[in-house]
Amino acid sequence: MINTQDESPKHQLKLERVGIKNLKTLIKIERNNKEYMHIPKINIFMDLTEDKKGVHMSRFIESITEILEDEVRGEHNSLEQIGKHILEKLKVKHSYISAEIEFESEIPLFEITPVSKKDTIEIHDIKVSLRNNNGSWIKILEVSVIGNTACPHALAVNKKGTHIQRAIGNLRIETDFDNDIDLEEMIRVVDNSFSSRVFTLLKTEDESFVVDRMHNNPFFVEDVCRNMLSLSFSKFKKSKIHAECLSQESIHRHDVFAEGAIET
Amino acid sequence: MINTQDESPKHQLKLERVGIKNLKTLIKIERNNKEYMHIPKINIFMDLTEDKKGVHMSRFIESITEILEDEVRGEHNSLEQIGKHILEKLKVKHSYISAEIEFESEIPLFEITPVSKKDTIEIHDIKVSLRNNNGSWIKILEVSVIGNTACPHALAVNKKGTHIQRAIGNLRIETDFDNDIDLEEMIRVVDNSFSSRVFTLLKTEDESFVVDRMHNNPFFVEDVCRNMLSLSFSKFKKSKIHAECLSQESIHRHDVFAEGAIET
Amino acid sequence: MINTQDESPKHQLKLERVGIKNLKTLIKIERNNKEYMHIPKINIFMDLTEDKKGVHMSRFIESITEILEDEVRGEHNSLEQIGKHILEKLKVKHSYISAEIEFESEIPLFEITPVSKKDTIEIHDIKVSLRNNNGSWIKILEVSVIGNTACPHALAVNKKGTHIQRAIGNLRIETDFDNDIDLEEMIRVVDNSFSSRVFTLLKTEDESFVVDRMHNNPFFVEDVCRNMLSLSFSKFKKSKIHAECLSQESIHRHDVFAEGAIET
Amino acid sequence: MINTQDESPKHQLKLERVGIKNLKTLIKIERNNKEYMHIPKINIFMDLTEDKKGVHMSRFIESITEILEDEVRGEHNSLEQIGKHILEKLKVKHSYISAEIEFESEIPLFEITPVSKKDTIEIHDIKVSLRNNNGSWIKILEVSVIGNTACPHALAVNKKGTHIQRAIGNLRIETDFDNDIDLEEMIRVVDNSFSSRVFTLLKTEDESFVVDRMHNNPFFVEDVCRNMLSLSFSKFKKSKIHAECLSQESIHRHDVFAEGAIET
Repeated sequence: MINTQDESPKHQLKLERVGIKNLKTLIKIERNNKEYMHIPKINIFMDLTEDKKGVHMSRFIESITEILEDEVRGEHNSLEQIGKHILEKLKVKHSYISAEIEFESEIPLFEITPVSKKDTIEIHDIKVSLRNNNGSWIKILEVSVIGNTACPHALAVNKKGTHIQRAIGNLRIETDFDNDIDLEEMIRVVDNSFSSRVFTLLKTEDESFVVDRMHNNPFFVEDVCRNMLSLSFSKFKKSKIHAECLSQESIHRHDVFAEGAIET
Repeated sequence: MINTQDESPKHQLKLERVGIKNLKTLIKIERNNKEYMHIPKINIFMDLTEDKKGVHMSRFIESITEILEDEVRGEHNSLEQIGKHILEKLKVKHSYISAEIEFESEIPLFEITPVSKKDTIEIHDIKVSLRNNNGSWIKILEVSVIGNTACPHALAVNKKGTHIQRAIGNLRIETDFDNDIDLEEMIRVVDNSFSSRVFTLLKTEDESFVVDRMHNNPFFVEDVCRNMLSLSFSKFKKSKIHAECLSQESIHRHDVFAEGAIET
Repeated sequence: MINTQDESPKHQLKLERVGIKNLKTLIKIERNNKEYMHIPKINIFMDLTEDKKGVHMSRFIESITEILEDEVRGEHNSLEQIGKHILEKLKVKHSYISAEIEFESEIPLFEITPVSKKDTIEIHDIKVSLRNNNGSWIKILEVSVIGNTACPHALAVNKKGTHIQRAIGNLRIETDFDNDIDLEEMIRVVDNSFSSRVFTLLKTEDESFVVDRMHNNPFFVEDVCRNMLSLSFSKFKKSKIHAECLSQESIHRHDVFAEGAIET
Repeated sequence: MINTQDESPKHQLKLERVGIKNLKTLIKIERNNKEYMHIPKINIFMDLTEDKKGVHMSRFIESITEILEDEVRGEHNSLEQIGKHILEKLKVKHSYISAEIEFESEIPLFEITPVSKKDTIEIHDIKVSLRNNNGSWIKILEVSVIGNTACPHALAVNKKGTHIQRAIGNLRIETDFDNDIDLEEMIRVVDNSFSSRVFTLLKTEDESFVVDRMHNNPFFVEDVCRNMLSLSFSKFKKSKIHAECLSQESIHRHDVFAEGAIET
């Protein structure tokens, strides 16, 4: 049997990450008595030593596939847990020093509108990554949430009002695998860092509430970014916390941006 | 010599459009004493009769390449003119009934800020298409311009102010090849249809001007769309005019949208 | 109460489509004893008469939200059926002449690899649209499927082999609401139109099967497009059928493309 | 005069990067007796101390604008040189510790087809970044080039041939500002690392040349990545070199990927 992958490469150089990008599959998660159905985009990588020409790519897929089949037994309650099982299974097939898996997906939150008290479903982008480096595990949780900024400088200098725009808040937490952090709580932190959080459904009275709130909380992207870090500080322990805010300016063609980090 | 393309296909069906997508090249245009350098994305198609297995794709590229070489002789003053020469050259190589070429690019406009009177460069997305159907020529010019909407309903019901957001206006004009229409004039129409036009550079006094103007011209997407149609009506004769506005709501995760058309 | 939307607009022009774009929500479908969970991107539009300044955008969301709440009673077995209920509900709130709803989502198919007979999950992009024009309903079903093309001309003229590349097949069917057409069957048609269909998991023996099949079925994009139309002809009755193939050439930076249509 | 930006923020936290993203403008470069016209996407950032509420965003734009006006005097021969002048000008207006500018653009290369010896223009994506950290300058040059991979394992085990696909090679070099490295030479390295380089125009005899070359140089993504590192090793001195290859598999829906780095 021919095993081209195990041959010696022409240029004997170690590679940091070799694997698969943009694989899509179906994953079911049960968490807090709720069932989540994901069709995530998956990236999965491992290192490759200088003496091997290639990795056996089909083994990555097999590790994923076999774990997904095991899922019916109901043992997975988070994407990071499934990720850990996949990387453990991969370790048996491929002897790696470091490996990494990333899931990009969306989660729905069931919310109530602020004044009219109606049901509304809000969908947020999430990314869950897991890294194994020489046996130790690190997880990275990331949420990307839509909100807005109302410019405090324009509000201070103009009688008529200020400029307001959609903004995207990004919160990333790197921590130990066992440090239980909820994506919903991360989304809540970003929601509460904007001039106002936003809703898919807004009756007229809700819309007025949001408009008032934006004018009562005028924020630069720098403020939103610091709000995220400050709110995270008290909630997420033993973590590296990274926050970004991108504001799609209504008075410019370009965006404004702020980025910061703290450790807890 | 083997000519697989000229063989008879298994399923003898006519195809409407066969060709090349997403080709990039370098094109130089001289117009109104200004020189424009484009690296457009080009799509080029023709119909294929039911008795031919395929088109000779390299002939498309050759038609483009040969015309671009001719350019040094300085005879082209618009993308549609280059497009016409390419489709004429293609007709000699490939006998088609209908053919089409599209150029997606950007153009820079040199502007002055509204109060501080400083220089600012504004870049806009454009698309120029040319269709030959049985010998007759139609051109389609399209500009996509960034501006904003300030909600008139929220302004009417709230004391604090309204919600404002970035919006994208899209104006498309279909007309005879010989009807000379300027992309800059189309951009001006879209600029003037928003609550306010926007600028890359804004000093504090310019920013106040734009903020005031947005509050003085509160528009729904429907208003922006009708403004574009109404302003176009008096400017662009003998044309099919199509207008769209997409507003990236600051109070929602989704966008709102309006689309309309008139004929002049 | 102020109703800015019902005021008379400055420019009294009818608009073809006014509504919401890129709204995301959670939808559960039961079909053929399988449960599908969608987080679709939804667009929803209606026409607007020349005497109304704007539409009440929140009524669109309410129509969607109220239908989704009704869903627990289990009466929906397709996205088009949910879409029909949403547009019917919208008709009560907003008196329109024409309206339209679009769902962009993904569906997972549970497949078996060709030789090793292992389980594999394949995810495909789908789009389901529904239009009401003056009371009559039309639905448009669309699938976008990944496969490949192996060039027959290069295979004929070269001893070493041919050039092969990833290709995307797009099949769209426009038909009466009551004409029951399965998205899975449409995906199967596209799969069978390529040089070979592809799989997420491929053991070495499966990979050889796919490589052989690509070389045994060398196709231009024109062939793939005609294959889709020809296979659709016998399967999908009383429909307008539109097929596209885009081939991401391995020997060029650009793509090649073919597009055709038939009516059954 | 109100200067909201200089007020003390509520949460006194230092921010790593504050600035502008996705700004587009027009830039002219003269280099090696050729004139390049860029419409780059520009990102520009600086750090923000914990005692300042915000940065003056318009000063970023002014720094860019003023430098671009100076350009007519003809002193710029690279994007990194313009970037350095912009960051120096920004330092005068804003006293930062670290700052960064990024230009994303495209460059055209004028090439000759391999057998038919015809002219062809090839467009490549580039990114040029410049960082100032406490007075010291680092530049990062990046090129993204399209080519292909022909699988060596499938070629070894199948009689009919192998699977081939489009691939994207990415080469990034981090080095001192004064280390003169040519983007064209970086593109050449990536071109020569694939199974074959590709061309926009290919006559039949050129196509055969490319098809042959792909079959004579079967490479995994790992091989392409190592080829880039190995070829760079001898060419680019005193640099951190980072290489990636993404292969858009023709037999799968997903991509395969390899990434590595060396220092010279």
